[in-house]
Amino acid sequence: MAFPRPKPTTMETLAMERANPPFNVRKLSIKMHGSERSLILKEKFMAESGQRYGALHMLTPQIARHPAFKLSDIHDLSKDELRERTMEKFASMVYYVTNESLDTFSLRMQLIGIADPSFWTRFGVAYGLFLGALRSGATPNQLSYWMDRGVLGLNGVIGCFAMTELAHGSNVAGLETTATFDPASDDFVIHTPHLGATKWWIGGAASTATHAAVFAQMIVHGKRHGVKTFVVQLRDTKTFTLMPGVTIGDIGKKMGRDGIDNGYIQFTYVRVPRAHMLMKHTQVSRDGVVTEPPLAQLTYGALLGGRTSMVADSSNSAKKALTVAVRYAAVRRQFAQGKNQLETQLLDYPIHQRRLMPLVAQAVAMGFTALKLQHMYEDMTQSLDSLEPGDPNMDEILDKLKETHATSAGLKAFCTWACLDTIDKCRQSCGGHGYSVYSNFPLMYADFAVQCTWEGDNTILSLQAGRALVGAWGAATRKKRLAPGVAYLGIPNILSSKSDDSLSLRDVQTAWHCVAANVVKKAAEEYVSHLKSGKSKDEAMERCSQSRFIAAKLHTIGYIFGMYREAVEEMEEGQETAVLKKVCALYGLWQVEEQQGYFLKYGYFTPQQMDKVQVAVDDLCAEIRAVAVPLVDAFALSDHIINSPLGKFDGSVYESYFAQVQASNPTPKVHPYFDRLIKPLLERENALIEDTGAEMGLDDELEEMKAEREEAEKEKEKAKRVEAKVRKEEYARVLPGGKVDDDEE
Amino acid sequence: MAFPRPKPTTMETLAMERANPPFNVRKLSIKMHGSERSLILKEKFMAESGQRYGALHMLTPQIARHPAFKLSDIHDLSKDELRERTMEKFASMVYYVTNESLDTFSLRMQLIGIADPSFWTRFGVAYGLFLGALRSGATPNQLSYWMDRGVLGLNGVIGCFAMTELAHGSNVAGLETTATFDPASDDFVIHTPHLGATKWWIGGAASTATHAAVFAQMIVHGKRHGVKTFVVQLRDTKTFTLMPGVTIGDIGKKMGRDGIDNGYIQFTYVRVPRAHMLMKHTQVSRDGVVTEPPLAQLTYGALLGGRTSMVADSSNSAKKALTVAVRYAAVRRQFAQGKNQLETQLLDYPIHQRRLMPLVAQAVAMGFTALKLQHMYEDMTQSLDSLEPGDPNMDEILDKLKETHATSAGLKAFCTWACLDTIDKCRQSCGGHGYSVYSNFPLMYADFAVQCTWEGDNTILSLQAGRALVGAWGAATRKKRLAPGVAYLGIPNILSSKSDDSLSLRDVQTAWHCVAANVVKKAAEEYVSHLKSGKSKDEAMERCSQSRFIAAKLHTIGYIFGMYREAVEEMEEGQETAVLKKVCALYGLWQVEEQQGYFLKYGYFTPQQMDKVQVAVDDLCAEIRAVAVPLVDAFALSDHIINSPLGKFDGSVYESYFAQVQASNPTPKVHPYFDRLIKPLLERENALIEDTGAEMGLDDELEEMKAEREEAEKEKEKAKRVEAKVRKEEYARVLPGGKVDDDEE
Repeated sequence: MAFPRPKPTTMETLAMERANPPFNVRKLSIKMHGSERSLILKEKFMAESGQRYGALHMLTPQIARHPAFKLSDIHDLSKDELRERTMEKFASMVYYVTNESLDTFSLRMQLIGIADPSFWTRFGVAYGLFLGALRSGATPNQLSYWMDRGVLGLNGVIGCFAMTELAHGSNVAGLETTATFDPASDDFVIHTPHLGATKWWIGGAASTATHAAVFAQMIVHGKRHGVKTFVVQLRDTKTFTLMPGVTIGDIGKKMGRDGIDNGYIQFTYVRVPRAHMLMKHTQVSRDGVVTEPPLAQLTYGALLGGRTSMVADSSNSAKKALTVAVRYAAVRRQFAQGKNQLETQLLDYPIHQRRLMPLVAQAVAMGFTALKLQHMYEDMTQSLDSLEPGDPNMDEILDKLKETHATSAGLKAFCTWACLDTIDKCRQSCGGHGYSVYSNFPLMYADFAVQCTWEGDNTILSLQAGRALVGAWGAATRKKRLAPGVAYLGIPNILSSKSDDSLSLRDVQTAWHCVAANVVKKAAEEYVSHLKSGKSKDEAMERCSQSRFIAAKLHTIGYIFGMYREAVEEMEEGQETAVLKKVCALYGLWQVEEQQGYFLKYGYFTPQQMDKVQVAVDDLCAEIRAVAVPLVDAFALSDHIINSPLGKFDGSVYESYFAQVQASNPTPKVHPYFDRLIKPLLERENALIEDTGAEMGLDDELEEMKAEREEAEKEKEKAKRVEAKVRKEEYARVLPGGKVDDDEE
Repeated sequence: MAFPRPKPTTMETLAMERANPPFNVRKLSIKMHGSERSLILKEKFMAESGQRYGALHMLTPQIARHPAFKLSDIHDLSKDELRERTMEKFASMVYYVTNESLDTFSLRMQLIGIADPSFWTRFGVAYGLFLGALRSGATPNQLSYWMDRGVLGLNGVIGCFAMTELAHGSNVAGLETTATFDPASDDFVIHTPHLGATKWWIGGAASTATHAAVFAQMIVHGKRHGVKTFVVQLRDTKTFTLMPGVTIGDIGKKMGRDGIDNGYIQFTYVRVPRAHMLMKHTQVSRDGVVTEPPLAQLTYGALLGGRTSMVADSSNSAKKALTVAVRYAAVRRQFAQGKNQLETQLLDYPIHQRRLMPLVAQAVAMGFTALKLQHMYEDMTQSLDSLEPGDPNMDEILDKLKETHATSAGLKAFCTWACLDTIDKCRQSCGGHGYSVYSNFPLMYADFAVQCTWEGDNTILSLQAGRALVGAWGAATRKKRLAPGVAYLGIPNILSSKSDDSLSLRDVQTAWHCVAANVVKKAAEEYVSHLKSGKSKDEAMERCSQSRFIAAKLHTIGYIFGMYREAVEEMEEGQETAVLKKVCALYGLWQVEEQQGYFLKYGYFTPQQMDKVQVAVDDLCAEIRAVAVPLVDAFALSDHIINSPLGKFDGSVYESYFAQVQASNPTPKVHPYFDRLIKPLLERENALIEDTGAEMGLDDELEEMKAEREEAEKEKEKAKRVEAKVRKEEYARVLPGGKVDDDEE
C-alpha cells in the first residue's frame, strides 16, 4: 500500500519551488511596488510577512491582529453581521484618517481594499464621495462649517452620497429628484416625485448615515437650473430616528460587498436651509437670484484619480487570486505520468501553464501601468495647479490631460474586466475546491464584479475611449501635435508596418501600434462615412460603436504593454529586470495571440509568424512556470490578506483547508430537521434496521453468474472489437500500437 | 416639470414590443422545444403562462403554487434554511418519481433544474448517482435487495455518492480509501488512511443521507484490485446517529447551490458485509476469489447522457438570463438623443444589440444542439442494445459512438462556458441593478459556475475532445470511414477552400469546416512531430495541448452551428423558420468574428470579407432586435422560474423590484448596533443637534464671492481655451463645429 518512495508533502513541494530562484525576491518585490517604502508600509499594515525574504520586522502590527479585521470567518457571516463588522472597522479607522499623512493613509486603504472591498467601499462613501462632494462643491465657509460639525472624525456627521436613482444610473443630468426654493422660508424643498426618482443604491443610507449629499434638479422661481448638490440630514444624531419626510429602506443583499448598507431614500417635501446647497459653483441668494458659474468645471482630473485606483485594484486583486492559484497548482498533484508513481504537479502540465502564466503576466503589466498612471496623474495635477492663462505649454498639457482621461476610461474598463476574468479562471484552475467559499474565489469574484459597472459601465467607458481615438485620428491625419499616448497614430507608415521577425519587445510594441492605428482608422472612417450619408453626429457615433469598441480595446492593450515595456526598459539591467522582461514579453505576445485576427488582417504578422508567436508563448509559459512561486511571492500578500487555505504560504493546503472547514462548520447538537422531514420519509412503510446483506442470496447468484460466464466468453469477439475500436484507435490511426489510459486526463 | 408628451410606462413599452411580431410566437416556441408535447408539459409544470400566446390553460398547476418551491425569498435564506427547504422539496417529489413515466419526469426535472439548481443537484445525487451506481454496478439480486429496502421511495435508504477525495478529484484510479476483505468475518473493512483520502464534496453526506456508494481500492488477500464500489451505511435510520467508525462533517458554504448539504466522510475501519460490494462486474467469493470482468465496461453511453443534459441546461440557463436582460433592455431608457425628450431604450443602442443579440443566438443554437444530441443519444442507445456480434453495421455504430462521445466532451465544455459567460454579460448589461441579488443574476452565476468544473473540468474535457480529433485526422489522411461529426475532415480540398462571398448558411458552414480541419491538422502534425523527436505518446499529447485545445474549440463551435443549421434546414418554410434562420446566421457569423484570426490565417475569408462579416453581424443584430421581446417570450419561461423583477413578463420592472426589496428587507424595530457602535462615534466631542445653517455666514460670503467674480472674468480667457480644447476638439478635428455632451454615453 505504500508508495515506492516517500511522497514529498505539500509543504516540502512548495519549499522546493522556492529553492534558489534566479533573482532576489525582495528586490523584485520592491520593483513591483514602485519603491521600498511602499513595500515596507504594506508589510507594516499586513503585519505578517516579516519572516519572508528579508522583510523588515514589524514595528506596529496592524490589521492582521485587529479583531474587526478578522477575515477567516467572513464567508459565514450573515449580511447583518457583515454590516455590523463594517461599522467596527469604521470606528477603528477614525484614528488613522485624522492622524496619518494622506499618502501613508492612501497606501493603507489600498491594502484594505484588497483585503476587504466591502469596508473599503463604505469608507470611500463617507470620505471619497460625501467629503469629496463637500470639498469640490462647498464654499470655504460651508466646508469649514461641516468640518466643525465633525465630518472628518464622524463625530456629528456620518455622510453618504445620494446620486443614483432607481430609473437613472449614469445619466446624472436626467435625475428627477427636485429641490425647489421657497423664498418665504429661505429653504429648499427636496422631493421625490415618483417611484423611479427614488434614490437607490445609496451606500450607508440603510442604517449608518446621518446626512446625505443629495443630487437634485434645482428649481428656483419655477425655473429648472439643472442638477445641484444639497446636504440633507437623514437621521437625528441622538436617537437615529428618521427626519420628518425622509423614508429609507434597505435594498437588501447584493452579489457581493454585503458589508455596505445600501439603501433607498424617498424625500417627501423635506426642507433644508438654503445654505445647505453647495454653492462654490452656482449660487442662490436670499431673494432667489441664481448665479451660474462661468463655465462647466474641469472634472477630468478627479475622474482620473478614481480610474487610476481601479487599475491598481485590478492588478492587486488579480495578484491575490493568482497567488492562490499558482501555489495550489504547485502542490496539487494529479495523474501519474507513465511509470512515475508520484503524480504530476498541476503546474507541470503545459495546459495549466497556459491557464495561469499569461494571467500572471497581465497582473504584473496592470501593476506597472497603475504605477505609471499614478505618476502621470500627480505630474498633471501639479501642472494644472500651476497653469497660468497664456502659458505657452497649456496646449500641450491639455492635450495630454485629455488623452490620459480618454485612455484611463479604456484602462478602467479593460483592466477591471481582465481582473474579473482572472479571478474566475483561477477559481476554475483549482477544480472543485475553487467552488468552496473558503478558497475565497467566490467572494473575490462577487466583490469585484461591481467594478465593471460602477464609475461608468465598462462598455460605455470603452466607447468614450473610442470616441476620443476617433478624434485623435482626425488630428493625426492633419499632422497636428498628438499627446504621448496616441503619438503612434502619427508614425509614418505605421498602418502598413511589418514584423522584423524578431518578436522582440520592440517588434511587439510596433505590432500593437500598427493594429491599433488600423482599427482606430477604421472607426474614424466609419464615423465620417455615416456623417457623409447624412446621419447626425450622435447617430454616426452610435453607428460606429462596434468599431469604436474594438479601437478602444486594442489601443488599451497596446497602452498597457507600452507602459510595462517603458518601465522595464528604464530599469538597470539585472536578474530582476531580466525576469520582468520575460514576463513583459509573455504579456505582449499572449495578447497578440488572443487578438491574432487583427495582426493577420492588417498584415503585421504572417500566418507563419503567428505560429512562431504560439511557440514563443508556450516557451515563455514554461520558463516563467519555473519561477512562478517566487514570482507570486514577490506580490507580497500575507496569508491573512489572501484568506485562502489553498494559497497558504507554507503549502499546508489540505491541513489548513480541513481546519478551516471544521472551525467554520461545527456539527449542531440536534439535527435541525430530522424529526420534521427526514424521519417521516424514512419510516414510510418498509424501512429496515437490521442489515447484514444475507437476505440478498448473493452467493447463489454468484454461482449462477459463473455459469453464465461461459456464455459471456462468446460475447468476447464483439467485446474485443469494441475495445480495439474505442480505446486504441485514436492513437493507432496516427501511429501503430500503444496502450491508452482513459484516466490520463 | 412634466414631460412635453406623456412618457409610456415600462408596461406600455413592453406591450409595444410585442405588437404584431412577424411570426407566431407559440409556433416558434414549439419548434424550440422540439414538440408541442414538451412545451405543454413544461407549461403544466410551471403553471403560469396559460394566458400567453394561446398556451393551454393549466390542468394541474405545479411548482409555482407549491410552498416548497417558493423562489422569491430564496436570496435571503441562510445556508441552513436553504438546506431544510431542499428536504421539503425532496419529500414533495417522491410522489412523482414513483408514479410518473420516466420521460415525463425527466422533463419535470429539466424544468426544476432551471428554477432551482441546488435542489436538482441534491435530487440527482440520490437518483442519478446513488441509484445509478446500483443500477450499473449491482447484480440483479443486489439491485432488488436495495429496491426492497426503499431506495426509490426513500423509505429506508437515502443515498449519496462518495467518490471524490480531498486530494483526488477526477483521477478515480488514484483514490486512496481502502476496502480490505476480511475472510474471517466475510466483511470488507472500509478505511480512510490519511487526511488526503477523506471523502470530500459528498452531496447529502453532511446531514441527509443514510447510505453512501463508496469508491475504494479493493484489497483481497493483500492484493490491490483497483477501485470498486461499496454500499456503506452512514447513519442509523431510526435515530440518525452516525454508524460506528464513520466521521462526518459539513464542508460548509459554497459559491452556489447551498441547498445541497455537501460533507466530508472519514471511515475508520468500518465493516460492511461482503455482499455490499457491487458485484455485477467484479465478483469476490466467500473465500476471497476475485473474478475480474472480461473487459472494461463501455461507459461512453452513460457519460453521453449526462453531457447531453448539461448542453440542454446551458441553453436553458442562458435563455433564462437573456429573458431578463432583453426585457429589461427594452423598458430601461437612458439618455435622450438630440432633442427627443424621451430617453432611448437600451435595446435601441447598436452596442447594446451587440451585447445581447449574439448571446440570444448562441442560446438558441445550444438548444437545438441539445435536442439533436438527445435524439442521437436515444438512437445510439437503441442501436447498441440491439447490436449482435458480427453485425455488419457495428463498425459504423461504434465509430459514431466514439465520435459523439468525444464531441460531447467538447460540447459540455464550451456550452457551459458560453452559458456562464452569458449570465455575467446579462448581469453587466443591466447595470447596477444586475448586482442586486433580486435581479437573480448573482445566484444564477454562482449556481451555474460549478458546471465548468464537475463531470470533468472543462479544459481537460476540451483536451480529450482534441485528442479524439487528432485521431480522426489520422483516419482522414488514410481515407478511412469517418463518423458524421468529423466527416468534414475528409472533404476534398477542405483545407484550402474559400468563401463564395455569399455569407450564406452554406458558406458559413464550409468556413467552419475549413478552419476546424486546419487547426485539427495542426494539432495532429504537432503530435506526430513530438513523437518523431522521441517523446513518449503521453508527453507528445501534453506538448500539443494548446493546439488540441484550439482544435476542440473550433470543431465544437462549428458542430453547434452545424446542428442548428441542420435543424432549420429540415423545417418547412415559414415565418418561424425564417426568423430561426436569421438567428442561425447571426450565431455562425458572430462566431466567425470572434474567431476571425483562424479564418484569416487559413485564408477562407479575406480581410475585406471579414469587414463584410462585421457589417452582416451589425445588420442581423438590428434585425433580431426588432423581434427580440417575442423571441425571448418563445423561450417560455414563467415569471416564477425567472424569479427576477427586472425580467417581469408584463414590464412592471420598477414596481416589482421595489416591492421585492421592501418585502425582503423589513426595517428592524430596533437598530441592531446603533447604541454599541454608532452613537459613541457621533457623540465624541462636538456633535451638534440644532442645524439651521445660519452659523455659516453664507450670505456675507456670497457677497464676497460676487466681488471676486469680476476677477474671475479675467480667468475666462484661460477657461474658454480649456473648454474649446477639451470638450469640442474630439469632433472638431474630424469635422468642424458641433456641441459635445459629455453625458451622452
